[in-house]
Amino acid sequence: MTFPVVGMVGGGQLARMTHEAGIPLGIRFKLLSDTPQDSAAQVVGDVVVGDYRDLDTLREFARGCDVITFDHEHVPTEHLRALEADGIPVRPGPDALLYAQDKGEMRAKLTSLGVPCPRHRIVRDVADVVAFAAEGASEGASEGDGFPVILKTVRGGYDGKGVWFVRSEADAAEPFKAGVPVLAEEKVDFVRELAANVVRSPHGQAVAYPVVESQQVDGVCDTVIAPAPDLDETLAGEAQELALRVAKELGVVGHLAVELFETRGPDGKPGILVNELAMRPHNSGHWTQDGAITSQFANHVRAVLDLPLGDPRPRAPWTVMCNVLGGDFPDMYSAYLHCMARDPQLKIHMYGKDVKPGRKVGHVNTYGDDLDEVLDRARHAAGYLRGTITE
Amino acid sequence: MTFPVVGMVGGGQLARMTHEAGIPLGIRFKLLSDTPQDSAAQVVGDVVVGDYRDLDTLREFARGCDVITFDHEHVPTEHLRALEADGIPVRPGPDALLYAQDKGEMRAKLTSLGVPCPRHRIVRDVADVVAFAAEGASEGASEGDGFPVILKTVRGGYDGKGVWFVRSEADAAEPFKAGVPVLAEEKVDFVRELAANVVRSPHGQAVAYPVVESQQVDGVCDTVIAPAPDLDETLAGEAQELALRVAKELGVVGHLAVELFETRGPDGKPGILVNELAMRPHNSGHWTQDGAITSQFANHVRAVLDLPLGDPRPRAPWTVMCNVLGGDFPDMYSAYLHCMARDPQLKIHMYGKDVKPGRKVGHVNTYGDDLDEVLDRARHAAGYLRGTITE
Repeated sequence: MTFPVVGMVGGGQLARMTHEAGIPLGIRFKLLSDTPQDSAAQVVGDVVVGDYRDLDTLREFARGCDVITFDHEHVPTEHLRALEADGIPVRPGPDALLYAQDKGEMRAKLTSLGVPCPRHRIVRDVADVVAFAAEGASEGASEGDGFPVILKTVRGGYDGKGVWFVRSEADAAEPFKAGVPVLAEEKVDFVRELAANVVRSPHGQAVAYPVVESQQVDGVCDTVIAPAPDLDETLAGEAQELALRVAKELGVVGHLAVELFETRGPDGKPGILVNELAMRPHNSGHWTQDGAITSQFANHVRAVLDLPLGDPRPRAPWTVMCNVLGGDFPDMYSAYLHCMARDPQLKIHMYGKDVKPGRKVGHVNTYGDDLDEVLDRARHAAGYLRGTITE
Repeated sequence: MTFPVVGMVGGGQLARMTHEAGIPLGIRFKLLSDTPQDSAAQVVGDVVVGDYRDLDTLREFARGCDVITFDHEHVPTEHLRALEADGIPVRPGPDALLYAQDKGEMRAKLTSLGVPCPRHRIVRDVADVVAFAAEGASEGASEGDGFPVILKTVRGGYDGKGVWFVRSEADAAEPFKAGVPVLAEEKVDFVRELAANVVRSPHGQAVAYPVVESQQVDGVCDTVIAPAPDLDETLAGEAQELALRVAKELGVVGHLAVELFETRGPDGKPGILVNELAMRPHNSGHWTQDGAITSQFANHVRAVLDLPLGDPRPRAPWTVMCNVLGGDFPDMYSAYLHCMARDPQLKIHMYGKDVKPGRKVGHVNTYGDDLDEVLDRARHAAGYLRGTITE
């Protein structure tokens, strides 16, 4: 059979779960992993161990792949262009990926498209930060000196890393120490965080998942509720349309996660601002594995191969995803037994990673008709696996 | 983490789908495959290519596995006993597997347990067959000379192979040519075929899936409907209890498929007779991948590891599975595109096998509220992939 080969760069849990979703599709999956112990490398048949920052390694890996896609956004743009020049389809392509790699470029592009974003500016030093903050105060968006503000390195951050909550001028020097350009953003007074996830294929077909609520703890995704409870229907539609428009305008192929702030205007009217973009399967879409007709992983594979996309609709009234973070106990196996025995409907997804405190080592999905019950079950399992709940 | 290693013997699609189900469970999966091109060998990370009939190969493979389980029933019993003597848990164990390997042993054991079976006898020659048939006629179970009868080699048959429908004495010589013991069975005048699938763990926990209807074409499973439509509720309960009892009495660990004939007595009362047993994930349980809370593959893995079992209940009112057989066209990819575009809810499961006429190369699952619509969708997709439906 002439079923194609998908090459995925990066051996993390997203690649692991993409491989899982690709098995029933009959596609061949090839992995470029940093080490043979990486989460995905443990379960994939065709693994190349190598450094994605090395062009020769990428070129060698790409040989025999029908398309290249990604577990993360860190492959250098010039390497992606070189692969494209070699005739290898890269999806999402470098022109789109740039906006997921560089927060400064992302803000400039979205603003040019009229997509609502927090007030932002590239800042070069502490004085710039102070001026940026003061402007917010003078516009009435904040009080006093305009602090706090958010500073972010434009590249390389994730899960709260590369992000600083800056309360005053005295805190503002730290982010500049890495020598990377820094983006200042207003501290948005949001009601909650949402995510609008869409998948787009090269020929332009696109599907939108229900908008979800995403709850963060210490800058790391903790709980996702699908769909977002009590979300204004018009706003939900606007968020989906916004994500579809961003996918189209940026030329995204594959899964696009648009992380959003839900805001409440002085008139009480709800609104949305774009927080972050991710052009790959995303933590806010893990619920789809057990809660949607077609998972984000299956649709990502279908999109990068330009296959017709699958139905993104939910299978249950409520689905909840809770991340399992490493706790103080290095061995989760007995907790895992307990959780399975306690809740035979629980869907556990382990990543095969060594447990380290705070590290994402898995997630659980629950679904059902009663949101409180579904939330309780997911939170209990995640807490028990981490060791923060012991009964 | 001390997550265990499951070793599976046999590289077919059952191993492929068991690996897929094991990924989220975080277990390590090791495969013993005849060739590197086998269905499962294409997608598993840790593959040993070797001959399961060779004890040294099995012993080498078993090193580092926490448990050994099977994609097929063909591993010699003495090898399984040798592995057990080495201290490797073999699940299901050789004492149970015997009854899935040898139809004569199976009939004798089930009969001793009072489990309803077709009339049967081990026959040594054509004269034995004629006598067996005549007995059926004299008991009024059939007419004239008592033919037709069914002859089966006691070992090695599957998908209609090793089974003969014998219409007269003249046809009865063929099955004896292989020199393998032959089992004669009455031709059961059944209403339809059912399957009662259960999963049992070493500590005795067991779950029963809904009883399904299984439709065969030319001795090969074609369509499975879950649950079996219009099945008498009492009979459904009896079938589940029978399967649970067989699993317990035979000491089965893992998935047990009990293939049944549904019969109608002279009084119109429905009944069941056991047709075949399979001690591994089974074609009649493929619907569970998309139609049940926990799939047969996930529960098989959980059972062989003595993990608590997952909920076997259905997620939709109706789920239909249709096998995709190879047709005249060696390349299914364009048909596959068409099916995805036509039905975005279709769940396709391809096995990565070369297409040969009549070979099982995949299956499709559909689910929903309306059985006719769910059946139509599955049959259309399977027929289109095979090439027997072209519009």
